Amino acid sequence: MFPNRLEVYCIKISYFSSEIHKMKTKPLILVTNDDGITAPGIRALIEVMNDIGDVVVVAPDSPQSAMGHAITINSTLHSHKIKITDGPQQEFSCSGTPADCVKLGLNELLDRKPDICVSGINHGSNSSINVIYSGTMSAAIEAGIEGIPAIGFSLLDFSWNADFTPIKKFIRQITLEALEKGIPKDVVFNVNFPKLKENEIKGIKICRQAKANWIEKFDKRTNPMGSEYYWLTGTFVNEDKGENTDEWALNKGYISIVPTQFDLTAHHAIQELNKWNL
Amino acid sequence: MFPNRLEVYCIKISYFSSEIHKMKTKPLILVTNDDGITAPGIRALIEVMNDIGDVVVVAPDSPQSAMGHAITINSTLHSHKIKITDGPQQEFSCSGTPADCVKLGLNELLDRKPDICVSGINHGSNSSINVIYSGTMSAAIEAGIEGIPAIGFSLLDFSWNADFTPIKKFIRQITLEALEKGIPKDVVFNVNFPKLKENEIKGIKICRQAKANWIEKFDKRTNPMGSEYYWLTGTFVNEDKGENTDEWALNKGYISIVPTQFDLTAHHAIQELNKWNL
Repeated sequence: MFPNRLEVYCIKISYFSSEIHKMKTKPLILVTNDDGITAPGIRALIEVMNDIGDVVVVAPDSPQSAMGHAITINSTLHSHKIKITDGPQQEFSCSGTPADCVKLGLNELLDRKPDICVSGINHGSNSSINVIYSGTMSAAIEAGIEGIPAIGFSLLDFSWNADFTPIKKFIRQITLEALEKGIPKDVVFNVNFPKLKENEIKGIKICRQAKANWIEKFDKRTNPMGSEYYWLTGTFVNEDKGENTDEWALNKGYISIVPTQFDLTAHHAIQELNKWNL
Repeated sequence: MFPNRLEVYCIKISYFSSEIHKMKTKPLILVTNDDGITAPGIRALIEVMNDIGDVVVVAPDSPQSAMGHAITINSTLHSHKIKITDGPQQEFSCSGTPADCVKLGLNELLDRKPDICVSGINHGSNSSINVIYSGTMSAAIEAGIEGIPAIGFSLLDFSWNADFTPIKKFIRQITLEALEKGIPKDVVFNVNFPKLKENEIKGIKICRQAKANWIEKFDKRTNPMGSEYYWLTGTFVNEDKGENTDEWALNKGYISIVPTQFDLTAHHAIQELNKWNL
């Protein structure tokens, strides 16, 4: 039941060497987003990450919201070393999509494989079906595909002036826990924060993606030359009443973490389809 | 065990009325793609579909490959009624992404909900991890999200002059079977065809998405003004040796069908994550 003297000695050695190791090699953190490198959301994320490790920012030079998992294959990419705000972080702007930023960061700009990739903080929700359209999450998923632990962070506030202060301590907590425990293989975290004060946030829930969707409405207009054009608008509708969904958690004042995967196979459907006449 | 006379009568009535129903209302088919409305791949798909039902084409006015699930929210959309090739189909070009085309088609251009949405035929593979980047599949997935049975078709031949003739009969077969049986709820088919002659194709396999990925390589160049820029290139690497994957099937001369879903939750990871200190 109890360790003998030699074992205690070994535990101590092991403890101290791991502490020394920790001190010597700070984690390397790749930071990106889809709202663009100047967005307040990524600035808040950089601030939290500078306190955890060595930070390299590779983020789009212009907003790339709703870009899904687009990548640039028929055009060229440009990248510039810049500095938007003070701090120890290195920063690169990139002309491409969020997924391009991660690919360029991992393959060209970083000296070594990062220990984690964090994306965001998105100005607006990426819960439920929004994960499909999200540039923030496509960046995190791209890192996941390349074998890097990755997290997308989003705040349920679309405003450019959104207040990210209340969620900083939770971002720190989730990132440190992910670095310590290791995110499960081929899984990427989709983390959404309710728009609440720090003391109003009830805690963190591990959730499934709610089965909700957008009811689109196109706003049809006529331009000064007489041609018709459309603006895409819509209403978000959640008919999923499950109490284990991200929407449920967020509505109740919790932070939602959905473990997200990039194997899109509907494994449950394979057996049924094998009975088809094909 | 055996139906009585009244039951036989009812069965007959029911059979004939369903046959009449079938004759009267041909299925409405929404056709789209990501290579653009003039691509030979979509022309071949329209030809097959004209023989099955009433066809409405809503496809991008320019190539949109690798657009992932991007949608247009910060800009306007334009659509024009046009006619690229002869036939009974109605055609609309759209300035947006493949997912935009489906949203616009379903919400503005079609008179009623289509019975099926088919996307493609893509010039090039959308097997394995390519599904994530694919505009062809994003269109099909968008239709799936909106509750429309949907199939993405892709041929393993990037060439603009790819020969789609050998696969037409299989596209017809898969579409008819899908219309008859009904694609499972919240599932979208990702169908890939090997580049083979019709008599060389061995059959159809229901598969899972292979765990393969791209090893990127950025081709760094200098422009005439002395600035550096990049082209994204890469090599596809499949280390998944499973004999139930799309890559395996395609390499063996089979057509692969991967049932694909848009619930990205890694359900298997939830239990483990609930043990974390969060």
